[in-house]
Amino acid sequence: MTRRVAVIGAGSSGLVCIKTCLDEGLEPVCFESSDDIGGLWRYKENPEPDRASIYPSVIINTSKEMMCFSDFPIPAEYPNYMHNSIIMDYFRLYAEHFQLTKYVRFKTTVLQVKQRHDFSHSGQWDVETKNSEGKQQKHIFDAVMICIGHHCHPNMPLQDFPGIGSFKGVYFHSRDYKTPEQWRNKKVVVIGIGNSGGDIAVELSRVTKQVYLSTRRGAWIINRVGDYGWPLDLSFNRVTNCVRSLLPFNVFCSLGESRLNRRFNHRLYNLQPKHRLFNQHPTINDDLPNRILSGTIQVKPNIRRFQGSSVEFDDGSVVEDIDLVVFATGYSFSFPFLTANVLPVSGNKASLYKYVFPPKLGKQTLAVIGLVQPLGAIMPISEMQARWATRVFKGCVKCPSVDDMLKDVQCKQEAMASRYVSSPRHTIQVDFVSYMDEVADQLGVRPSLLRLLLTDPRLACSVIFGPSTPYQYRLSGPGKWAGARQAILTQWNRVIQPMQTNACKVPKPKRSVVVPLVLLAAALGVASYYNRNSLPSILQEPSALLDRIKGFVSAWGAGSSF
Amino acid sequence: MTRRVAVIGAGSSGLVCIKTCLDEGLEPVCFESSDDIGGLWRYKENPEPDRASIYPSVIINTSKEMMCFSDFPIPAEYPNYMHNSIIMDYFRLYAEHFQLTKYVRFKTTVLQVKQRHDFSHSGQWDVETKNSEGKQQKHIFDAVMICIGHHCHPNMPLQDFPGIGSFKGVYFHSRDYKTPEQWRNKKVVVIGIGNSGGDIAVELSRVTKQVYLSTRRGAWIINRVGDYGWPLDLSFNRVTNCVRSLLPFNVFCSLGESRLNRRFNHRLYNLQPKHRLFNQHPTINDDLPNRILSGTIQVKPNIRRFQGSSVEFDDGSVVEDIDLVVFATGYSFSFPFLTANVLPVSGNKASLYKYVFPPKLGKQTLAVIGLVQPLGAIMPISEMQARWATRVFKGCVKCPSVDDMLKDVQCKQEAMASRYVSSPRHTIQVDFVSYMDEVADQLGVRPSLLRLLLTDPRLACSVIFGPSTPYQYRLSGPGKWAGARQAILTQWNRVIQPMQTNACKVPKPKRSVVVPLVLLAAALGVASYYNRNSLPSILQEPSALLDRIKGFVSAWGAGSSF
Repeated sequence: MTRRVAVIGAGSSGLVCIKTCLDEGLEPVCFESSDDIGGLWRYKENPEPDRASIYPSVIINTSKEMMCFSDFPIPAEYPNYMHNSIIMDYFRLYAEHFQLTKYVRFKTTVLQVKQRHDFSHSGQWDVETKNSEGKQQKHIFDAVMICIGHHCHPNMPLQDFPGIGSFKGVYFHSRDYKTPEQWRNKKVVVIGIGNSGGDIAVELSRVTKQVYLSTRRGAWIINRVGDYGWPLDLSFNRVTNCVRSLLPFNVFCSLGESRLNRRFNHRLYNLQPKHRLFNQHPTINDDLPNRILSGTIQVKPNIRRFQGSSVEFDDGSVVEDIDLVVFATGYSFSFPFLTANVLPVSGNKASLYKYVFPPKLGKQTLAVIGLVQPLGAIMPISEMQARWATRVFKGCVKCPSVDDMLKDVQCKQEAMASRYVSSPRHTIQVDFVSYMDEVADQLGVRPSLLRLLLTDPRLACSVIFGPSTPYQYRLSGPGKWAGARQAILTQWNRVIQPMQTNACKVPKPKRSVVVPLVLLAAALGVASYYNRNSLPSILQEPSALLDRIKGFVSAWGAGSSF
Repeated sequence: MTRRVAVIGAGSSGLVCIKTCLDEGLEPVCFESSDDIGGLWRYKENPEPDRASIYPSVIINTSKEMMCFSDFPIPAEYPNYMHNSIIMDYFRLYAEHFQLTKYVRFKTTVLQVKQRHDFSHSGQWDVETKNSEGKQQKHIFDAVMICIGHHCHPNMPLQDFPGIGSFKGVYFHSRDYKTPEQWRNKKVVVIGIGNSGGDIAVELSRVTKQVYLSTRRGAWIINRVGDYGWPLDLSFNRVTNCVRSLLPFNVFCSLGESRLNRRFNHRLYNLQPKHRLFNQHPTINDDLPNRILSGTIQVKPNIRRFQGSSVEFDDGSVVEDIDLVVFATGYSFSFPFLTANVLPVSGNKASLYKYVFPPKLGKQTLAVIGLVQPLGAIMPISEMQARWATRVFKGCVKCPSVDDMLKDVQCKQEAMASRYVSSPRHTIQVDFVSYMDEVADQLGVRPSLLRLLLTDPRLACSVIFGPSTPYQYRLSGPGKWAGARQAILTQWNRVIQPMQTNACKVPKPKRSVVVPLVLLAAALGVASYYNRNSLPSILQEPSALLDRIKGFVSAWGAGSSF
């Protein structure tokens, strides 16, 4: 029986893996190459090779109630969008509360992970490590969880930029960016309009003479601050998810795009991409439009060539005297300690059953945790994957046959290819609610809405109409947490509390269920128009349809609980 | 006859005064205490006493088409909201084009301006100056234009902050703030939520450990980036002005507030003031909500007391280890070179006929230019005042009797007192369109909408439905500029051009007249409900009503010209 589990990496995924192993009675040993927990989120002045690195001002794009571990709410007083230092505080609280650090061997690098000679029978792994004193060690583990994230290797496609060799200024990858001050009154080109590119361009534009933001495709730009000032991702819930699944893709995109264009016309701002809103991983940036309108950031097309200190863009325009080029061109991942036959990676694609298990191993004792790019928060997803993986290790949950797993992998890859713009950035995309539900189904912790409605309508309303917070997956099944119900019912309090910084004023914000209901009704209407053929089949499946709408009618009477 | 005019100050108001004097055949001599033009807008590392000072990142809050001088459009390629360095570029272009600098005596301070012994007869002034070598000079002028702005003396009400003497950290006025870098990882309190307070708080919050933004009243926060990404102030036009005058004040406020709350709930963000939206000079800040939601700025009430390095707020909360306090508590103005009997100032109030002429002098040969706080841009207002003042100097335009002028002053002060929150900040408030029209009426350059409609419907539509750009006041009357029509018809091109930074994409933004028409119809409806008594009298004045609606019906057929 599986007992000893190697956890590789002590970032957010590694921590939750240790905790989950302990919950399941397994014995985790975590190897962390640096001297502290936190992974990506721990700011360090000097980035180490093959590690992600952030800059001091980084603030996370997912809000605290959506990104927390499911049985450990983020303290009520912490802000909704946390600065990296506060995220570290939370990780330390988590590690301390569940006594996780003692399972971590710091400054210990994993050199090799390979199947034991009797793997087909035992499922065991040989793990070779090296500590900071150079001492190498061999270990045997019953299972391995890989938690190294997907921000491993800076992707810097210099070969696509003719003349870069002649460039007289400085250039580096966004991971090497730290603070703007040294670029005061300089001219800077930022390449790439992902979240890093946008954020760095905005920060630099406050001190530089000029920032040029170069983007091949453009992007739809989303606000962190949603309507009425609520964190945007709190609107990712089962209602919007249902609306999305009912509406034709293009209609749903059009609805979103028209909202984004109302904030600023993406065409006027040179940002409108050819692709639709949900064809791309979104770029979140609240400050960009203001910087573009004030001209401190100029949006430019792709770079055609460098020459000396000048840069020529695809539209033929040339800018001179560029001092700095920041390649915000993302990251690629790899598993250097694994032999290629265990888990081949090419073009940033790895064949993993539900992004976790290599399907062909024969024994499911190797799990990759956190190798997803969600439209939402990653921490709860890592946690859900860890809960599933440990149950699989123990044999409590079975994976399907190799063929079925491969079919699922292929199916996901095809869906991704058809939905997303082709790019190394879009190989591990998942939708938060759908993916959480999907994995939760594997281990039997998906909340049963019907049962909730019958037994606890107040809670049901929160689960259905409220944000899909991770606590929902602790209401029942293995890993059930007694505090889950209370955590859900008090989630809005924790959203509001950090805002209550002026006791002279007591805010009483209200939220209404009218908007989701109207959305649902509209979605049903449009869906019935567009899906004239397919809709009747939905209607003939009362249980599926019921699954989609059962909450709403009931909630209408019960009112909103938040 | 008036010939020689002393212009005191070579900031934006001083420059336009020189130019206007030249236009009117007068002989300006401008005294500027520093060594360059630009006044407030020229960034200097070390602020001089009794001069305003800005920090390097300042970007103006009014957009280029609304803030330009009326016969000198800002170059098409300049951004809509200009950085202070680009504003200086524009001023230099203006000074060069009209050959203004040769009229400026730099490094020359005005020591005294007093009425000549025969003032009652000649209207002349004795002006005493001192240059940088200490040499004093006496001059005689036929008229004086005071262009020293209203950001003269930092207002720092230390007496209202008990314990400030014991405070162990650093404190200074916002005018002494330059860059954030030295406050990295420090804790800062910013007092005041005017435009400086908001901007400085946002900038500091990107590097500090924590910013506390202390505000007694709260504020309504407005975006520079308006709907669809157009500069917000381009929506200040004759239609909104008409809607505003038709609607009851509270209804108009409610409409505005509900829009602002949709962006973020001011109550949730501790910013909702007790007063209504238009009871206060607005605070413009696009980045504040995001900084509050991420907790890097905490909104706090007024400070009760300082003690050592801690600060106690009115709600009883105490924050420790404060390193810096920034007093963003505004400025006060005075005229130290004038004897008190010429122009008494108390409580930031001066008795000036339409904010320009001291009413009691007997001779209107002294004009104060730019001493207004508009809901909009100040430069075109200074220009309009200068045009009026020079016509008055020359005797082409007469001011009414002293009694009538005093009545007008009192009337304005009462209107201000009843509309605005009582504060030294609200003594020189004007609404852009109304005030421009009012002064334009004095010298006969207000555009005649009816005549325009009959003779040039295309232009009329732009004037009525388009932004109230300053060119409108150059279409006819004294100072008529042949380029005005073209400048109006091409104003949207100049808004769009700086955005066209990617020749691969050619934006074709459209603007529609539907929204203003709907607004007008709604306004008429609501007005008829609220003003059941007063409305019929409006209806009985066909010319006044016609003035308000004549543009719209015609425009409906003609379509929008922009």
